Amino acid sequence: MSKEIKPWTTLSSELVFHHRWYKLRRDHVQLPTGQVLDDYFVSVRANVALIFALTADEHVILVRQYKHGIGEILIEVPGGVVDEGETSPLAAAKRELLEETGYVSDEIEPLLEVSDNPTKDTNRIYFFLARNARLVAAQHLDETENIEVLRVPLAGVEAMILGGEIRVSGSIALCLLALRKLAP
Amino acid sequence: MSKEIKPWTTLSSELVFHHRWYKLRRDHVQLPTGQVLDDYFVSVRANVALIFALTADEHVILVRQYKHGIGEILIEVPGGVVDEGETSPLAAAKRELLEETGYVSDEIEPLLEVSDNPTKDTNRIYFFLARNARLVAAQHLDETENIEVLRVPLAGVEAMILGGEIRVSGSIALCLLALRKLAP
Repeated sequence: MSKEIKPWTTLSSELVFHHRWYKLRRDHVQLPTGQVLDDYFVSVRANVALIFALTADEHVILVRQYKHGIGEILIEVPGGVVDEGETSPLAAAKRELLEETGYVSDEIEPLLEVSDNPTKDTNRIYFFLARNARLVAAQHLDETENIEVLRVPLAGVEAMILGGEIRVSGSIALCLLALRKLAP
Repeated sequence: MSKEIKPWTTLSSELVFHHRWYKLRRDHVQLPTGQVLDDYFVSVRANVALIFALTADEHVILVRQYKHGIGEILIEVPGGVVDEGETSPLAAAKRELLEETGYVSDEIEPLLEVSDNPTKDTNRIYFFLARNARLVAAQHLDETENIEVLRVPLAGVEAMILGGEIRVSGSIALCLLALRKLAP
């Protein structure tokens, strides 16, 4: 089966909700068929960097914290938003790793650039793999953050995913990609 | 390192944007420290079912379409939202597979229940694996949908992920989980 897929054209855009912590945009769009939709909503979100950090003794650094969207305490890879004006997703990955866990690495490589919800969200997610990560500092958290740092044996990460202990799409995707890269 | 991680308490909630196509909620929350935040925003989203469908001749059924949030044409696994009142995510997975691709399967198993963005979104994503998927109907699309169906050899899916051809967190996570399940 083959058919031509074409992008839509944005005729106009407006922010219908504009707050420091949330921006919602309404687009007036024209489809390739000529059909016009006057209320296509997208969530304007900052890009995110996620990092799979492996220590020299083959432990992976994970974080455990309460996430209010879903209302649960979850285990994920470290990461966070690329700040406005920040030069690179790599810089954000390093900063978030250090702030959330106290770890640094001089051997970080990009793995993939993805999105979490390309239908509703504008942002991109950058995956990184860090080797020889080492603890150099204490956590440096925002006032509203409370994060437990976990050191998990590399050999145990896949079982955590299969058992539902790591249950966030981006963290699962990055962990499985990193595992494949580390033991192809 | 060990510290106690506790959930927040929601003191009150209100929908600050309430449209057929987008619902944004503002929560007034109290943190375990006692600190109160009066403007924590979460996007109220429907649950989603995603399905990795494998045919008897070892092809995976993928879909290619324009996604306006990110503004790109992307390849993903079939899937869609669990409708209000729909009895089960499995029913949604079957319906979306049939509507988007014309395929059905009598051998569908749940793989995992995850979330895409537990910080900002309320919804859950249900992963399914379907075996012996077979083409029984034409696509049945909404007026605004235009979807190309791809039949990809099972052995080629991992290369599509590593090469950035499949670049959505949920699709990557589900494909890598399914590949592991099919060839442990």
